[in-house]
Amino acid sequence: MARTKIVDLLKSKDFDKEINVKGWVRTRRGNKNVNFIALNDGSTINNIQVVVDLASFDDETLKPITTGACVSVTGNLVQSQGAGQTMEVQAKNIKVYGAADPETYPLQKKGHTLEFLREIAHLRPRTNTFGAIFRIRHHMAIAIHQFFHERGFFYFHTPIITGSDAEGAGQMFQVTTLDLKNVKKTDEGEVDYSEDFYGKHASLTVSGQLEGELAAMALGAIYTFGPTFRAENSNTPRHLSEFWMIEPEVAFNEIAENMQLAQDFIQYCVRWALENCEDDLKFLCDMYDKELIDRLKFVVENDFVRLSYTEGVKILEEAVAKGHKFEYRVGWGTDLQSEHERYLVEQHFKKPVILTDYPKEIKAFYMKQNDDGKTVRAMDVLFPKIGEIIGGSQREEDLEKLRTRAAEMGVPEKDIWWYLDTRRFGTAPHAGFGLGFERLLLFVTGMTNIRDVIPFPRTPKNAEF
Amino acid sequence: MARTKIVDLLKSKDFDKEINVKGWVRTRRGNKNVNFIALNDGSTINNIQVVVDLASFDDETLKPITTGACVSVTGNLVQSQGAGQTMEVQAKNIKVYGAADPETYPLQKKGHTLEFLREIAHLRPRTNTFGAIFRIRHHMAIAIHQFFHERGFFYFHTPIITGSDAEGAGQMFQVTTLDLKNVKKTDEGEVDYSEDFYGKHASLTVSGQLEGELAAMALGAIYTFGPTFRAENSNTPRHLSEFWMIEPEVAFNEIAENMQLAQDFIQYCVRWALENCEDDLKFLCDMYDKELIDRLKFVVENDFVRLSYTEGVKILEEAVAKGHKFEYRVGWGTDLQSEHERYLVEQHFKKPVILTDYPKEIKAFYMKQNDDGKTVRAMDVLFPKIGEIIGGSQREEDLEKLRTRAAEMGVPEKDIWWYLDTRRFGTAPHAGFGLGFERLLLFVTGMTNIRDVIPFPRTPKNAEF
Repeated sequence: MARTKIVDLLKSKDFDKEINVKGWVRTRRGNKNVNFIALNDGSTINNIQVVVDLASFDDETLKPITTGACVSVTGNLVQSQGAGQTMEVQAKNIKVYGAADPETYPLQKKGHTLEFLREIAHLRPRTNTFGAIFRIRHHMAIAIHQFFHERGFFYFHTPIITGSDAEGAGQMFQVTTLDLKNVKKTDEGEVDYSEDFYGKHASLTVSGQLEGELAAMALGAIYTFGPTFRAENSNTPRHLSEFWMIEPEVAFNEIAENMQLAQDFIQYCVRWALENCEDDLKFLCDMYDKELIDRLKFVVENDFVRLSYTEGVKILEEAVAKGHKFEYRVGWGTDLQSEHERYLVEQHFKKPVILTDYPKEIKAFYMKQNDDGKTVRAMDVLFPKIGEIIGGSQREEDLEKLRTRAAEMGVPEKDIWWYLDTRRFGTAPHAGFGLGFERLLLFVTGMTNIRDVIPFPRTPKNAEF
Repeated sequence: MARTKIVDLLKSKDFDKEINVKGWVRTRRGNKNVNFIALNDGSTINNIQVVVDLASFDDETLKPITTGACVSVTGNLVQSQGAGQTMEVQAKNIKVYGAADPETYPLQKKGHTLEFLREIAHLRPRTNTFGAIFRIRHHMAIAIHQFFHERGFFYFHTPIITGSDAEGAGQMFQVTTLDLKNVKKTDEGEVDYSEDFYGKHASLTVSGQLEGELAAMALGAIYTFGPTFRAENSNTPRHLSEFWMIEPEVAFNEIAENMQLAQDFIQYCVRWALENCEDDLKFLCDMYDKELIDRLKFVVENDFVRLSYTEGVKILEEAVAKGHKFEYRVGWGTDLQSEHERYLVEQHFKKPVILTDYPKEIKAFYMKQNDDGKTVRAMDVLFPKIGEIIGGSQREEDLEKLRTRAAEMGVPEKDIWWYLDTRRFGTAPHAGFGLGFERLLLFVTGMTNIRDVIPFPRTPKNAEF
């Protein structure tokens, strides 16, 4: 008999028909005559209640049915008499696929801390919390592909292993097949890469942007969605050494279109979550963050404020003058800290904010230079609770300006000759941005530690599973 | 004035209205009075023809308009008088964003070999061939997400960097932040990993399957779609050191459901290509492989043949007996070579074939053992021209059988304790498979070298761009 998923069963009106349901036992309770099994199969956060008439089953069958056990139940779907249930399954036949010894199974009924669950990342998807988070993670990935696909963007796979490290976005991991016990040196005392797999120093990508620009200058509008890596020794709730990034890049877009794309994009994703992840969001809202759903709705319903870095700094300086204390100094020319970004978003505007036109010294070499000679067409999207969720820019399309800026910032031309070729041959205005997928998930799930929104977090000294 | 993409323009019926179009010049030809520019913006393989009345433009404007230049054209969309065109744009205003010096721009009108284009992978998306291939690549990725999303599978990100190498699918790249010029050793002469980023030996994943199984035993049905890596020194048209893989895994599925899922999945993707990539497929069919579209239709319209490895070997042995020459020996117990697989598919059955129940010695430790004690519930999907396109299996859900097989095959239990936990706690039958994304693309595009279906191929001694 074909199995029905619980998500479908709970929508069914096929009462008094025989069905089969399979899943893992969340709880079992009851009395001498009847037992109730709450069964979950991961298709939804909601359980189906299985009613077991003890007179119809022998003890041997029922004994292994404890929290975490896997069972197949055949029986009639009936309208429920109990409060809080709309339907239940009256068990006729139960097959136990696998027991879960209550003495050793780590996920008993009682609540667990998120810290403890991180240590058993291989089992935590079985909890309500992580079931909800990973279903939302799925939905956000689908929303992202759907958003870009509907708008004629092409999904483009930029390389993970790269011989180039020109982007300068962060420290890189080295990729090698050399035997580290016995690294050969050249006569000059340098590492001899001639026998390494790629014949040279190779690293894990920190961003697909530069390669994405190549593609945008051919296919018109592209986006990447892949893993990126930072070897920074940052043990914070906001940093991972392996995370997923989305980077759209659009030929002929300038900064204004880039801002609108960023707003449309995030609003689309958040709206998707509200429309498709209602039960999971409600659970997270109830358990972790009472304002979560209101915050999501607020972002969908309000335009993002747009202002220049210069205007933003002025607001912050006025706040300081009025007695607001920041840990870090505010002043034109210095990068904004998270506390500054959150002040603008949470206290001043009470809306998401897009800051533009940052001082060129604090931004990357490839950003389009403004006529003032001081600022570049960067944009950062700042969100409540998160701070920077998106960073992007219009790109410098002028070959000579780009070369000059690369030289000033110490990027060797021999590393970016291929990137410069896009400006050498048929250059055009273009713009794009990067969204850290896990930053988006922090916002959408209300979680506060980035280790809790990726299945297997990689952080300093931690690459378990 | 808002730009219209060429893909939309070519569907438009808004004749005699002013429009703006932007793109790259493919060709410019004409006579003393009128010029014709074929303009492409990457949104489609088709160009729009721009008609330039030379009397209305000065030479300085027109001079840089050569192959590869980027221009913005405003003008009226009119029904075309010329043969082969349905519409054209009569230019009123032309702005040149970027020239492309005919002396140095590598992509002139004349055809280029695929080998040459591989050397300029940063520019090749601008050609018809690679525009078509990468648009199809996009569509296949969207089809994959759509297929699984519609069926209630959750997209699950398994780790890229891993401290585990139990899967045994191939040689691995090492990931490190140690200074290779000065690798510290322990007192025992081993590499001292205490100062490495993860505090131990870490590698790039060869497969997300084991972690995917963890997720399937919680969320019910999941799929991965991410990069995987093999450090094998294989310089062949079928191997990449970095490639993308899709790995679905389903709780409660057995081998029969797994085979059906694989067939439904590939047919869905190929049907999507036929329905959504018509112009690009037609181009590849005309230019590279006249039978391409027929082959795609054939796969969509025919059930895949299903038979056991044992039956397959018998057919091959009969072929040998009748005088068919294979390079490699055929015999029960040895792995099938590509020539054997293609004989079954192309000459014997003339249909895609799913082979099952392989000798356990030539398959991985985690495959479900059959009662015969000799075979396991593996399945390989074999395709015309490609050979193996999918490999999968029902998994061994019995803890003790799995432990025994792991020990026999030399997989240390300390490396897979977390994997064994899925069998220790609430185990269940489950099955899954892996599809190499680029293998699918070889089939769908008709290309014969795997370096031509991924934007930036990584192969031995090659990690450029």
